Amino acid sequence: MKKSDYEAELTPMKAELVGMARWARATGQRVVVLFEGRDTAGKGGAIRAVSEPLNPRQCHIVALPKPTDTQQTQWYFQRYVEHLPSAGEIVLFDRSWYNRAGVEKVMGYAEERQVGAFLSQAPIFEKQLVDDGILLFKYWLTTDQARQEERLRERLDDPLKRWKLSPVDLAARDKYEAYTEARETMLSATHTEWAPWTLVDFNDQKRGRLTLVRDLLDRLPDTNVPPEDIELPELGHEPHAERYTLLQPIADYPLN
Amino acid sequence: MKKSDYEAELTPMKAELVGMARWARATGQRVVVLFEGRDTAGKGGAIRAVSEPLNPRQCHIVALPKPTDTQQTQWYFQRYVEHLPSAGEIVLFDRSWYNRAGVEKVMGYAEERQVGAFLSQAPIFEKQLVDDGILLFKYWLTTDQARQEERLRERLDDPLKRWKLSPVDLAARDKYEAYTEARETMLSATHTEWAPWTLVDFNDQKRGRLTLVRDLLDRLPDTNVPPEDIELPELGHEPHAERYTLLQPIADYPLN
Amino acid sequence: MKKSDYEAELTPMKAELVGMARWARATGQRVVVLFEGRDTAGKGGAIRAVSEPLNPRQCHIVALPKPTDTQQTQWYFQRYVEHLPSAGEIVLFDRSWYNRAGVEKVMGYAEERQVGAFLSQAPIFEKQLVDDGILLFKYWLTTDQARQEERLRERLDDPLKRWKLSPVDLAARDKYEAYTEARETMLSATHTEWAPWTLVDFNDQKRGRLTLVRDLLDRLPDTNVPPEDIELPELGHEPHAERYTLLQPIADYPLN
Amino acid sequence: MKKSDYEAELTPMKAELVGMARWARATGQRVVVLFEGRDTAGKGGAIRAVSEPLNPRQCHIVALPKPTDTQQTQWYFQRYVEHLPSAGEIVLFDRSWYNRAGVEKVMGYAEERQVGAFLSQAPIFEKQLVDDGILLFKYWLTTDQARQEERLRERLDDPLKRWKLSPVDLAARDKYEAYTEARETMLSATHTEWAPWTLVDFNDQKRGRLTLVRDLLDRLPDTNVPPEDIELPELGHEPHAERYTLLQPIADYPLN
Repeated sequence: MKKSDYEAELTPMKAELVGMARWARATGQRVVVLFEGRDTAGKGGAIRAVSEPLNPRQCHIVALPKPTDTQQTQWYFQRYVEHLPSAGEIVLFDRSWYNRAGVEKVMGYAEERQVGAFLSQAPIFEKQLVDDGILLFKYWLTTDQARQEERLRERLDDPLKRWKLSPVDLAARDKYEAYTEARETMLSATHTEWAPWTLVDFNDQKRGRLTLVRDLLDRLPDTNVPPEDIELPELGHEPHAERYTLLQPIADYPLN
Repeated sequence: MKKSDYEAELTPMKAELVGMARWARATGQRVVVLFEGRDTAGKGGAIRAVSEPLNPRQCHIVALPKPTDTQQTQWYFQRYVEHLPSAGEIVLFDRSWYNRAGVEKVMGYAEERQVGAFLSQAPIFEKQLVDDGILLFKYWLTTDQARQEERLRERLDDPLKRWKLSPVDLAARDKYEAYTEARETMLSATHTEWAPWTLVDFNDQKRGRLTLVRDLLDRLPDTNVPPEDIELPELGHEPHAERYTLLQPIADYPLN
Repeated sequence: MKKSDYEAELTPMKAELVGMARWARATGQRVVVLFEGRDTAGKGGAIRAVSEPLNPRQCHIVALPKPTDTQQTQWYFQRYVEHLPSAGEIVLFDRSWYNRAGVEKVMGYAEERQVGAFLSQAPIFEKQLVDDGILLFKYWLTTDQARQEERLRERLDDPLKRWKLSPVDLAARDKYEAYTEARETMLSATHTEWAPWTLVDFNDQKRGRLTLVRDLLDRLPDTNVPPEDIELPELGHEPHAERYTLLQPIADYPLN
Repeated sequence: MKKSDYEAELTPMKAELVGMARWARATGQRVVVLFEGRDTAGKGGAIRAVSEPLNPRQCHIVALPKPTDTQQTQWYFQRYVEHLPSAGEIVLFDRSWYNRAGVEKVMGYAEERQVGAFLSQAPIFEKQLVDDGILLFKYWLTTDQARQEERLRERLDDPLKRWKLSPVDLAARDKYEAYTEARETMLSATHTEWAPWTLVDFNDQKRGRLTLVRDLLDRLPDTNVPPEDIELPELGHEPHAERYTLLQPIADYPLN
């Protein structure tokens, strides 16, 4: 998909996202969106597509580091709970509590017992949030291994993307099928009436982003809250220019 | 400045930012960058230019809401301190403790006494961080009122930018000169040997971003830590495709 | 009940509490005890009876202030979750999430809808903690109004206890029966197999404390973890005395 | 010193502490008290003497566990800052940031470089708090080694006190003189005009507590804020008794 075509489709949806955020602010709604999926699927880009037009004081991206030793011994959901939204806030989780049923299970970081406990607790935990009025959306980004391979190679070769490549990613290559199985088990246990999963095909990442954002917008209520009426009268004088005393701006970046 | 020219200049700097982040991770450095400046100057875009190529688990953007009543009674720096970096982290402050000497002073949200106290405390507070080894950079983005007016009008007219326009922005129009004075007072008090300010001209925002990023990179030590050596052997089998049982991906976004 | 008799009974139980704490530390157990009950019932004294012999770095007392405006809009349990124990910790809640079904309901601080939601959510929330392995104990301290009246008058007259007397306490006098009803409704909804309530008669506070501590100890598993073996060899020299250079201790409090 | 004599002296001071807390609440004062001193000196008991008559929602005891690996890499004062008081609060630190100049130095947990940095930073850090209006008191509890030996032996022999005895305590025996030296170095560097130290002789712990509490009260401003006027009218009916439906109180603790 060409970048210009992508932008042409995304731009009007950005306006809808802005409208959604205005509605959330005006009505005190709380929105949580989980972004899960395979490594390289494109979670980061999807999150940017949603967050880019929004006020960073309203829309928070939560990308937690791995738990500390102390957190490991706490109630599993505890470290996520502190990031849940207040009135008017939109929280985007870049990976989420589902780590336990995905990477932790496949890579053996969690015991079977812990994974089983998680799969039975997650729907209950989520039901509490939904019953409390939080709007919860769960997206899982899919991608075939052929595309994953291309992207891994791109990460290896592109210095800008190299940091995205970790030893865990490489280990994950051999476990593509194990991840598929883990996902299906996870879906069986946690695709509920109150908190359903939505799978989005990210073999084409731009199209995947359009699909995801469109779906998110379609599932939110009709959200037309007109923006506050603001007047911008004439300034009434010549505009001022910057005046410097102590310090001057540094030299502009040189252009050829 | 044309977008393509901008991208051509920025791309190699992105690679340097990635290198800087790798160095910070490898050596445990802690980096704090403050972004201050007039409304509409372009703080958000400058922050995105720095953060976009970096791992969101390493580079955090801190955009605090206004303090709660309880926070109002605490040590002024307390709510900022909890966001200071751990080893290897880079924290970008979208506005910062300098609110007190800028918007709070000009709009009368803080008393003269509080502003004065802040101006004498800030250098001491910052010296502690710097003495502790934190790398602290303070940028102030300047813009003439003519450009500010254009951008305010753009915010009013562009539904995508409308949320950036608040009544405080409008009040700030009449106070352009007061903001200039407040900045100069602030610079006199807080431009120190250990934590100097850097002013960057953002009348042209793209060029301003290039100037800022280039300056930031130039002021960091030579940071060449080679990326971890990673092998990507042949897969050894046909790549797997996604297999679905319970749920299928939703329909792709329709293209014409 | 005489103080000396009380102490004679409590002292051996203190040793058991210390043993319980050693066991919790050694095995990584997490213990949560809720203290609820009428105003003046004696929650503070009961908490002191449990915590006094324990290491304050292991046994935490949580007495939250009323929620901020922001917290009011969050998931109701959110501000409690952050105080749940890590491995080896014992957390004593001086009032708890049950505020919503008690004081908030009776005094009209919460809407009926919110109280109803709480009553159906609390058992689910608690089941999650218990399923996660947290040992949860819920005590409700009862007292007749005649005793409550005596204690209110004592609070009024005794300068040391005066701070315990708030306008809410006085309003609660007229609502003794409403509190009874609220408690019974709460018990019906939240006395569950996995997190049962224990009522303790605190008409005699000393005896109530003995009853509560004995019950708590009896319901914990047999907890005999011997203390670490520590040798205290002879010092091998005359003991040193304090030596002062810059500062001397201040004068001792004068005794007649 | 006999317990009854001790109580007779302490009781009127408790009333003064209550008055001080009422004054802090009414005027929004913030109070911080550090309790430092040798192992076995009696920090816990001194803290209890101050906190026991006060509202636990107003007077917080902060006894931090050892720092996590992540905290180790942060600004040294960061984890303490989050516990500083809001308006009206009193915070008692059971050990404090001075760990670095005491146990960490003597036991070799911190490098000389870190200790030196701490000794130059602490006065600056404290000046900021004091300049911000926080009332800061620093007490160091002294005790001769002969008394320390008695108390160590008591901890070894008394099951109730056994948890207070750690291997670090034993190691500290051989380092009594090193602790003395570390204290004197610390006093030289951190006994400042704005945040002076007060040494209190705790060879007799009861008397030490009286000395400390008296000193603290004497150094606070005259704090007479009369308690709120509260009326306690007649109840106007027979007092109600508890009525139980679902659950009865458990059997009272049996007395002989």
